[in-house]
Amino acid sequence: MAKRTVFFVSDQTGVTAETLGHSLLTQFGGPDYRPVTLPFVATLEQAAAAVERIDAVAEESGLRPIVFATLVDDRVRAAVKRCNGLFLDFFAAFLGPLEDELEMTSAHASGRAHGLTDLATYTTRINATNFAVANDDGSGARDYNMADVILLGVSRTGKTPTCLYMALQYGVFAANYPITEDDLEAGVLPAILRPHQQKLYGLTIAPERLQQIRQERRPNSRYASAMQVQYEVREAQLLYERLQIPTVDTTECSIEEIASRILDRLGLERRVRP
Amino acid sequence: MAKRTVFFVSDQTGVTAETLGHSLLTQFGGPDYRPVTLPFVATLEQAAAAVERIDAVAEESGLRPIVFATLVDDRVRAAVKRCNGLFLDFFAAFLGPLEDELEMTSAHASGRAHGLTDLATYTTRINATNFAVANDDGSGARDYNMADVILLGVSRTGKTPTCLYMALQYGVFAANYPITEDDLEAGVLPAILRPHQQKLYGLTIAPERLQQIRQERRPNSRYASAMQVQYEVREAQLLYERLQIPTVDTTECSIEEIASRILDRLGLERRVRP
Repeated sequence: MAKRTVFFVSDQTGVTAETLGHSLLTQFGGPDYRPVTLPFVATLEQAAAAVERIDAVAEESGLRPIVFATLVDDRVRAAVKRCNGLFLDFFAAFLGPLEDELEMTSAHASGRAHGLTDLATYTTRINATNFAVANDDGSGARDYNMADVILLGVSRTGKTPTCLYMALQYGVFAANYPITEDDLEAGVLPAILRPHQQKLYGLTIAPERLQQIRQERRPNSRYASAMQVQYEVREAQLLYERLQIPTVDTTECSIEEIASRILDRLGLERRVRP
Repeated sequence: MAKRTVFFVSDQTGVTAETLGHSLLTQFGGPDYRPVTLPFVATLEQAAAAVERIDAVAEESGLRPIVFATLVDDRVRAAVKRCNGLFLDFFAAFLGPLEDELEMTSAHASGRAHGLTDLATYTTRINATNFAVANDDGSGARDYNMADVILLGVSRTGKTPTCLYMALQYGVFAANYPITEDDLEAGVLPAILRPHQQKLYGLTIAPERLQQIRQERRPNSRYASAMQVQYEVREAQLLYERLQIPTVDTTECSIEEIASRILDRLGLERRVRP
């Protein structure tokens, strides 16, 4: 059976339309659809080209495409709306009530939701990202004083992507410390971490899941063996408990969820706007 | 004057509510509001606590808060809706038309838009992220064969965050190569890049802007001097032209925009769902 095609049409990057559409579609049992993003549709010519693509899919597949649009220019929006798809217009639905509440008219100008806002915000994101890269697994430089949070975990629990996500999305300074077998045997963390006890956050994971992940990386190694994985996960958990470090179980979590739970729990400010 | 407070209330991470709300508010002249994210509001108790926070702000500030919600449980949504804020419900507006079109009822179950979908997607994101970190500025390991795209640019044009964003958001394998003064003097790229000509993408930037960014990093250095910055930007531009490398001007662009333009132009598939 043909998959339904879902278009995300935007005069900007399409990130907002993708986020909205994907969120809604998960309510219908998940993402068994073909996603097509059409970014930077800002002129009538570009609108006509978008309509052509949508209509071609409608014709070929015999299934009406779903079109999530974030188009602020009234003429561009009207042009795309004439396509043979189910047109769901994000701005039209919400700008009205907001205009009433704020007693303002909205710009109806091509959105800058993911445009550059100001240098301070840009710099914060960049600095946080560089900090995360510099303070990642195995790198030499460590500057825990600057860190908002320091993630702990054994190998492959998701420390690196979580730190980078927190930096890019929220401008939060996140370092990470990979717990080694030496740490587990000693049952303590290195002295360098002790002054930063309140910044520590532990990542945990179900051993079966970790084994699966490690198996993909180094098949049939000691590193990926059931015994080794169970040992590391258990000892890390005991270490967290002993040191009263808060933890998040990453087994069923996406990077977004892990990051969000940590910020929420530590009460960390989101330094840049979504 | 008191700033308007904007709440992002979600039964999950709040990322969707933040993205949508921020997008709408940029239509009203930008983000001069106080954002508060209330994630993981999934029970009636949590809903009551959220309402209490919203109502306290309404009372203290005398300005009705704006509440962007992505709450799928009908009872939780109804509870939050009773707050003294302007309640804007992203799901309610669009689920109806989608239910009709798909001839399905939606789950009305706590959303998994940023939950873990499957191991393959998770692995793709993680692998892409690790690839970006391993193939970043100045690191030893280079695996350009695996790369979907290789970003070029002089120091501080945004290569690193753009690569990481493409990895995390789209699962795209992005490497970067910092153009050195030696490259500029030679007027050619290193031999290692030559087999990958079609993957190259150049970042450009206005010299004034680059100077501002470098000045923050190393004030009053040669690195941040007008003459040095102008020289590097001009020579890099000439190099791109000579080698017919496509470019994007990052001066007025956010990381999201740079990434989106590159994917669009190179026709790169988005490997993971938004």
